[in-house]
Amino acid sequence: MNDLYYEDLHVGQRFTSRTQTMTRERIVAYAEEFDPQPQHLSEELAARSQFGQLIASGWHTASVSMRLQYEAAFSRVPNGAMGAQVDKLTWIRPVRPGDALHVVVEVEQMRPSASKPDKGVVTFLTTTVNQDGAPVETMLGTVLIPRRPASAGPRGG
Amino acid sequence: MNDLYYEDLHVGQRFTSRTQTMTRERIVAYAEEFDPQPQHLSEELAARSQFGQLIASGWHTASVSMRLQYEAAFSRVPNGAMGAQVDKLTWIRPVRPGDALHVVVEVEQMRPSASKPDKGVVTFLTTTVNQDGAPVETMLGTVLIPRRPASAGPRGG
Repeated sequence: MNDLYYEDLHVGQRFTSRTQTMTRERIVAYAEEFDPQPQHLSEELAARSQFGQLIASGWHTASVSMRLQYEAAFSRVPNGAMGAQVDKLTWIRPVRPGDALHVVVEVEQMRPSASKPDKGVVTFLTTTVNQDGAPVETMLGTVLIPRRPASAGPRGG
Repeated sequence: MNDLYYEDLHVGQRFTSRTQTMTRERIVAYAEEFDPQPQHLSEELAARSQFGQLIASGWHTASVSMRLQYEAAFSRVPNGAMGAQVDKLTWIRPVRPGDALHVVVEVEQMRPSASKPDKGVVTFLTTTVNQDGAPVETMLGTVLIPRRPASAGPRGG
């Protein structure tokens, strides 16, 4: 895959990731380490919770979405995209064991950095989608992306 | 610890967690699963990155902060706090192996839910702080907290 610089992006551009299946084993392991609420720990505890069934922690879904977003787009950015902040993170639907997730990363806004002439400020909307095509999470985040140096030659496409 | 209902909260109230040390082992394990950027994977790769040293993924810090926030406050909420959305998540300083983190969870805003009479809508600002007293992350999030049912008796304090 080609390098991805600020100049290679445009508003509305989309990157789509591979699919990753959420296993019961990883859902429970994440919850035991980071989010030990009943609805994430076991079927038995979840059945007695307000959710009624075992679901993934929203932070687990966010972590998996980070992985897929990285593979689909940020891994191609020379020296990496530097995360600045998340402007909004919303959990829309529950994620259950066996759900197969992918992300669609869309360029929402972009402008050259005022303080760092070698960087651009890019806002991405990352939507995490399940096997039914339904969104389970949206994440609006802003990152710094390097501008193409003259030495890197013209845009490769 | 006492149950924590909507009626037990007030704006400006704070909950402080225990301290958790970020180990190199867990920083690398999280990164291998969720955020395989060079600065999170090994000292060697990190030294050649724009960060120059091994640092934790921001999403790992957010996950640990979730755990500490749960222990400090949400574990006391009957049936649990239902996460609605994160309004802002900002990474302020790098987190390195050996850093000892705790969170301070402060009630920012609260109002009864218009659509769910048994719930309140509460916005918390969770600040993750390192061993030097410096903030490394802030997270502004909104959750639903159950209101005290008449059957639960008066406020316990």
